[in-house]
Order: sequence, then C-alpha cells, then structure tokens
Amino acid sequence: MGFEAMWDALAAVGRDRASGGYRRFAWSDADMACREWFAGAACERGMALVEDGNGNAFAWWGDLDAGNAVLTGSHLDSVPDGGAYDGPLGVVSAFAAVDALRERGVEPRRAVGIASFADEEGARFGIACAGSRLLTGSLAADRARGLRDRDGVTLAEVLRGRQRNPDRLGPTPRLLDRLGCFVELHVEQGRGLVEHGAPVGVASAIWPHGRWRFDFRGEANHAGTTPMRDRRDPMLTYAMTALAANKQARLADARATFGRLDVAPNGTNAIPSRVQAWLDARAPDEATVKALVDQVTRQAEERAGRDGTDLTVTMESVTPAVAFDGSLRDRVARVLGGVPVLSTGAGHDAGVLQAAGIPTTMLFVRNPTGVSHAPDEYAEPSDCAAGVTALALLLQELVT
Amino acid sequence: MGFEAMWDALAAVGRDRASGGYRRFAWSDADMACREWFAGAACERGMALVEDGNGNAFAWWGDLDAGNAVLTGSHLDSVPDGGAYDGPLGVVSAFAAVDALRERGVEPRRAVGIASFADEEGARFGIACAGSRLLTGSLAADRARGLRDRDGVTLAEVLRGRQRNPDRLGPTPRLLDRLGCFVELHVEQGRGLVEHGAPVGVASAIWPHGRWRFDFRGEANHAGTTPMRDRRDPMLTYAMTALAANKQARLADARATFGRLDVAPNGTNAIPSRVQAWLDARAPDEATVKALVDQVTRQAEERAGRDGTDLTVTMESVTPAVAFDGSLRDRVARVLGGVPVLSTGAGHDAGVLQAAGIPTTMLFVRNPTGVSHAPDEYAEPSDCAAGVTALALLLQELVT
Repeated sequence: MGFEAMWDALAAVGRDRASGGYRRFAWSDADMACREWFAGAACERGMALVEDGNGNAFAWWGDLDAGNAVLTGSHLDSVPDGGAYDGPLGVVSAFAAVDALRERGVEPRRAVGIASFADEEGARFGIACAGSRLLTGSLAADRARGLRDRDGVTLAEVLRGRQRNPDRLGPTPRLLDRLGCFVELHVEQGRGLVEHGAPVGVASAIWPHGRWRFDFRGEANHAGTTPMRDRRDPMLTYAMTALAANKQARLADARATFGRLDVAPNGTNAIPSRVQAWLDARAPDEATVKALVDQVTRQAEERAGRDGTDLTVTMESVTPAVAFDGSLRDRVARVLGGVPVLSTGAGHDAGVLQAAGIPTTMLFVRNPTGVSHAPDEYAEPSDCAAGVTALALLLQELVT
Repeated sequence: MGFEAMWDALAAVGRDRASGGYRRFAWSDADMACREWFAGAACERGMALVEDGNGNAFAWWGDLDAGNAVLTGSHLDSVPDGGAYDGPLGVVSAFAAVDALRERGVEPRRAVGIASFADEEGARFGIACAGSRLLTGSLAADRARGLRDRDGVTLAEVLRGRQRNPDRLGPTPRLLDRLGCFVELHVEQGRGLVEHGAPVGVASAIWPHGRWRFDFRGEANHAGTTPMRDRRDPMLTYAMTALAANKQARLADARATFGRLDVAPNGTNAIPSRVQAWLDARAPDEATVKALVDQVTRQAEERAGRDGTDLTVTMESVTPAVAFDGSLRDRVARVLGGVPVLSTGAGHDAGVLQAAGIPTTMLFVRNPTGVSHAPDEYAEPSDCAAGVTALALLLQELVT
C-alpha cells in the first residue's frame, strides 16, 4: 500500500462522528485497531514486528544486532478529539520512505526500524510520552503500573486486560544499546513553516514543559439556599486562577493552559465541593516555567484565602529543555539543503530519546493553519509528499 | 417498620462509598431500588400503590374518589452526591405520621395519600420537579419525551427501558380533581430554624429561580505550540463569567452559581473548543433574577468579544415566585402553635402543586449546619421526631 492507501485505512480508526476528531487513547479499542494497522503495514513489507514490554511497537528492516540502527516513526494515539496528523503522519511517512528506499534499490548497511510509541499523548494516564519514557527509564515502571485512568483503572490492570504483562514494563537495554539515532517526522503544530514558505523544516530544541494538577477544595451546598457570604465555592478560586495563568503567560511570553477540568459533584443546583484542574505550562527556558507556575500558585492561594477554599498543587510531570543533536541536524541541512530550523513548545518521543543520549532529529511538515490537537489539524498532500521525500533522503544518507 | 427502620433500609440505597453522598438519578438502578422501597412501605401498611403516567408513585389510605384528599410526601431521587434527607425525610416522615394517626385510632373522612414524586432534582434530564410538572401540565409531555441525559439517551427511551409507556406522560386530571391539599415536609436547606431556635417551621414562599445554559465556543488547539495571542480559548470567557455571576449576585442580594461544567475535548494539552456551563440564579423577586442574568450575559458577551470566542445563552427552566396558601398556613400555625415562617430559595414539588392551584404548605425540619445537596446534610433524630409529630398533628386536623 502506498501513502494514500495507508492513510485512508488508518483515517477510519477511532474517529468520533460528532466532533470529527480522534479518540485513540492508550490500550482502548481504537488504539488496538491502530496496533493492528501497524502490524499489517509491517507484515506487508516483510518487516519483523517486535513489541517491547511497554507497548512500543517496532517494525524492522535488517538485522538490529548489527548495531548502530536507524530508528524512525512516531505514535498513533491521540488527544481527545485530536487531529489525524499528530503522530500518524510520522508513522505513515516512515513506511512510505522505506518503500521509496527499496524501490530505488538501497541496501542499508544498518537496520532501519519504524517505531510506533505507546501513549505519547498521555491522554488516558496523564503522563505524556509514557512509552518512550519507560523504554529509556525516565519513567519508573513501578510508578507507571500504578497510574490510573479517569475510571480509576490502573495501567497494570489495563495491560493485563490486553494480554500484556505489567511486570515487563521498563527499559529495554538490548534495543537502546543498538540504536544509532532516531528521526521523527511530525506535522508542525504552529505556523513557523508557513512564515518561512517551506514545506519541511528541522527542529532545534523542545521547550521545557510540564503539567501541574490544581486541587481546589471547598464545601458542597445548595445553590438556592446558601447565601453568597456563607459559601466556600472552589469554582471561584479556580476561575480566578485560570485568568491569572493566562495573564502571567502573556506577560512572560510563555504558554499556560487550563484545558482539563473535573468538577464534583457537577450538579446545576449544587455548589461544587471540589474542582480539579490541570495547568499545562511551557516557555523557552526552565526558569520562566518555574516562575510562571509559582506566580499562578501564589495568586491561587491568595484567592483561596478569600474564598474560604483550599488548594493543593501537584507536579504531575516536568520535562526539561531538550536540544537536538547538532551534528545530526547538520547532516539534515546538508542532505535537504538549508531548511528552516524551528524550536517547538510541543513534547515528543524524539525529546525523550534525545534526553536519553540517543542522537535524535525531527522533521516538521508544514501546517497551513497551525491548528493541532483539534479536528481541523491538516497538512497538504503535496507537503506530506515532500516530507516523505525528505525523510527518505535522510534515511538513505544515514544507512548507506 | 418505624421511622428508624424505614430510614436505615433506605439509607443503603444509591450511596457512593467514596463521597458518602447519594446518586439516585431518575430511573437509575438506585432510583428503581427506592421505588421498590416505597412499594414495600405502602404494601406493609395495606395502602394502595398507584403510579401515574409520569413515574410519580402514590400510596393511598382511604378512597380517593371521596374527593378533597390530603396528599403528603416528597421525593426519593437526589442530586449527584446529595445528602440523605433532601426528599427522603418527607417520604419517611409521611409513613411515620400515617402510623401515628392509625395508632391513635384516627378514622380519616378524606383519603390520605403519600407521594413520591419522580425526578424532583432534575439531575439526569435537567428539568427540576419534572414529575410534578408533568402531573400538573406545566411541563409538556412532548418536550419531556425528548429530554436527553448526559449520555444522550432520551427520557422516552429510558422510560421504555423501565417498562413504562412514554405515551402516558402528562397531566392526570382524575388525581388533580380529587386533591384537596398537599403538605410537603422537608429538611431545611439553610439555618433559619437554627437562628429561631425551633425544630420545625412553615414555608411562606419559594423564590423565583431558573437555570440558564451558557455555551462558550472557541477553537481547540495545541496547548504548547499556540501563542497566547493566537488563541480563542472559551475557558477564559467562562472563568470571567463565573466571577461576574458571583459578584453580581452579591451586589443584588441574590444567588448565582455555576456548579456544572462540561468541557470539550477536556485534555490537559489542548485548548478547549467548547465550555458548557449552567447558571443557577435565584432572588426574592423575578425582576432581580432577570436583571442578574442579563447583567452576567452582557459581561460574558463583552469578554467573548475580547477572547475571540462566542456565546449562546439558553434558558432551560424558569420558575416564578410561589406564595403558599395563606389559610392553610394559618391552620398550621393554629395546630402547631406559632412556628417560624420562612421563605426559601429552593424549588420543591410543593411549589409546582401550589402554582397549579392546589392549596399547599411546607413544613421544614431544622438543619444544624444548613448544608444541603452534599453528603454532610443532616437533621438530629429528635428534630426528625418533632417533624413527624407536627406532620401527624396537621394531617389529623386536615382529615377529621
């Protein structure tokens, strides 16, 4: 199957009719269907399918034991109502690039692997890049086993339900020791390439970023009979905090988002007892992220004092800044001819592998609107083709 | 079974272990178990169990066709994580009061009925007092059949699943024509009786109140890569609106609450595309409610203009002020000796029946903390006993 046929087969999986977006959460039925799709694409090409203990799937062309292998790929899971490109474009392009190398008779001297990393978005268990973090050891297996989804089910239980053994979670030295480099192709999640007028670019660095859970607690009571002065309403403390986060991010030239909320009891005629809200914060440097979160927390605590509510802030994950491998980037520039170099506020498995010491680079494909994590995410077919061409050229450079 | 045994049997039904609160939503398994409990209590007393086409259950002592019947009771459903008393106290006290009358050999000249009204809280289908509104005709059967719960299932479908015929929804003239009056006993949802130092009081009026759905729409996008200035984040518009509602309610001596939210896609790393929020607004008079909602809507629209979001406000239900029957209240005062007279911001089936022209009164039982619609809702056993005594005295006065 060529690019388009692969794309069309995958496009049907896990799509919500009402929103038009994707709901491919880790180990859900939709995610299992994506795994089946990946297995089929590997099988069709005679590539060896290997899954590590973390649910990361790999399709291999050539002998991994020869060492210094070249890995490419991305992920197939999605955020809630995500777009079609974030993740899948990198996996589909990887298969298409392997097809291109084979068509032109390239005989790689090093194995070429295509990765589909598990739970990159963290939409179900709250930890982004869980699969690559487990593979590299930056997420401890014990912690991962106890992670719970919104229904309270642990990752260990979910894995057992999918015939996976949670005792196998953790680093895979045999694989890591044999990897020479990793290349992730990804749809751009901003308009940098639109501004540069280029279909393909290369990443310089990933901004430091993290997730903090704000637990606002008050007192549930009747919305009709409780005088305003007697209330301890955590919704008010949350509302001020959301506005403060927006303002502080603008002042610091950073990014702050409250996009996920859980309200209890969530009844129209009840003052909430509890509002849980997740702050996503990012900036070009770590000091700015820290100062931003500290300032928002201070303002939230001050407001909680006035509302008679209280507040706990829990850091759920923090990823330091990652600078991608310089010499690999130079090779990309040489092979592709001066492409734009971009930094990004988005986390990726590429960042996790680079942080673990594996020379890594990323190729971005132009996104005409910059929209991502939403159904309108898009890339022109001609730009997708340019991405495949660039990836194939780079892989050929790396394996011959 | 006496009061305590009835109370204990009911207390186990539909209770959430984690929160300690009740989740007895209309036509849920918990609600069906409450219906079974009611049937058992009626059967044990040789009272005739009748259910109207709206799911309202009635237990009758005496012949309804004699006319001018005295109805008492309340409801058994709950808000999410509601307390044990709101509703059930009125139903259990009604059975205990009938027992008291029988023990003292009272022979009623008019039928005495105990009502358990369906879906008083509106927690599932969004319309409070749906059962009594359907009975009296103030909620149209066609509209009710199409109401959807949070899973998108219509009331008509839910009714069929419980072997009820949705075509039977609507007014029940045979019952309404034979009702002489209605008496609802209810736990107080404030601290009026604490301030009066009295275990039991009587209602003067219910404040006008209503529910408005605010639909804030923006553009979903990536939380990490979308610059603050490029966002159209409906969460910000909502947050300002929640703070504005609180401030305007304080200024107007009214009550305004945003207690229920639905965020889409509700992902940590996605700017929301949509925030749905429900405003509950109440005040002593209708002009104040209207001015409050208008002012909050204006402020929300102004902010939406700045956030690049947009907004629709939909009135879901509005209940005008209800003044309870004056001569019935005078009889209560005569029978019980000067009890405190209180107005309330809470809606009740009693308000619906009074608005339909049935002379109605309410007895309140003291609530030491005023907390309601929350697991901590409470009444002392001695105050509950005082409530039963008062209700029995009043029923005796009304039926002999």
